[in-house]
Amino acid sequence: MAGMFVTFEGTDGSGKTSVIKGLLARLDEIGLHDDYLVTREPGGSCISEAIREVILDKKNTEMDQKTEALLYAASRRQHLVEKILPALADDKIVLCDRFVDSSLAYQGAGREVGVNEVAAINRFATGGLSPDLTFYFDLDPTIGLKRIKTNRQDEVNRLDEEQLSFYQQVRAEYLELARQEPNRIKTIDASQTESMVEAEVFSQLKKYL
Amino acid sequence: MAGMFVTFEGTDGSGKTSVIKGLLARLDEIGLHDDYLVTREPGGSCISEAIREVILDKKNTEMDQKTEALLYAASRRQHLVEKILPALADDKIVLCDRFVDSSLAYQGAGREVGVNEVAAINRFATGGLSPDLTFYFDLDPTIGLKRIKTNRQDEVNRLDEEQLSFYQQVRAEYLELARQEPNRIKTIDASQTESMVEAEVFSQLKKYL
Repeated sequence: MAGMFVTFEGTDGSGKTSVIKGLLARLDEIGLHDDYLVTREPGGSCISEAIREVILDKKNTEMDQKTEALLYAASRRQHLVEKILPALADDKIVLCDRFVDSSLAYQGAGREVGVNEVAAINRFATGGLSPDLTFYFDLDPTIGLKRIKTNRQDEVNRLDEEQLSFYQQVRAEYLELARQEPNRIKTIDASQTESMVEAEVFSQLKKYL
Repeated sequence: MAGMFVTFEGTDGSGKTSVIKGLLARLDEIGLHDDYLVTREPGGSCISEAIREVILDKKNTEMDQKTEALLYAASRRQHLVEKILPALADDKIVLCDRFVDSSLAYQGAGREVGVNEVAAINRFATGGLSPDLTFYFDLDPTIGLKRIKTNRQDEVNRLDEEQLSFYQQVRAEYLELARQEPNRIKTIDASQTESMVEAEVFSQLKKYL
């Protein structure tokens, strides 16, 4: 089996993280336990962790939006080099919770830094590496924000304090990316129950394995 | 007087920092004490300081070179927004120890990340802002490294551990930049005595004030 790079994208509260957990159990069931790496930035890279601390520090409320975009790209680069590329070279299936599309949607569109400019610094960061397959969990942000408030009041950070209009811009950009790259990006209706979403993603993923 | 943005560039040990100190005394003498800001990255910006700590942490020996270039660009962006742009808007003369040219020479050429690629991420960081005037302190790196070892053994960090050939590549790129932008970049022979260098820089700077 050749290495395969799969990413999961969507606005906060879209259920990505829970569904990934369910997927792993299913991959184990079909005997692929030693064949995948599940990760997300900063993904255990010391340098990426240190960068992430700077980004998420609540004291840093005066952070410029371009600074933030550059820091995400830096963290991504290091995580890619330390974790993702070695796993792909080792023929693993890499399942990554968020990647470049998150920066295009969040920093590029949501924070209005500019999608093309954010794409350029991320091409520098990734050397042009694109996922083989991306699952975009599409959800009305009002539902996503409601889920966040109910489920994880202890995890509220600076990003969760953003407004609904921000998330609507983020979603619009995700939908635009999916329109531009239908072969890579599979849009999943994340308003379904978690088990329905998980079944749909697994069914699509299996076709590529 | 309109705001003016002046930068100082050169390899380590070229004497920039001492000369800048001397220049400030001369600017004070001609009555400009309230009209300038002297700064260098991270320049007292909390966020830039935090980014700089990540870059210079000796534990981070596994830092990828593109990660480093992105972190320098992030630190630069924040310093620009917090310190340089407000001072220029306030019609100050901004004297900045290192700016984009350092990244082109050090990361782009010295670490071989690619000058054009590093230029692109820095255009993102600066929004295309270029200094009005740049003094490049040109010096044979063997002399510069000898000066460093003599003068500041307590300040040796990860960057000072680099090899001579690295500094030679850095110098070659500085000379190339000066060739490309002769109107902006003034090359100063930094093998002269400090007082001679200071007099030459001040004489050139005065023409622009």
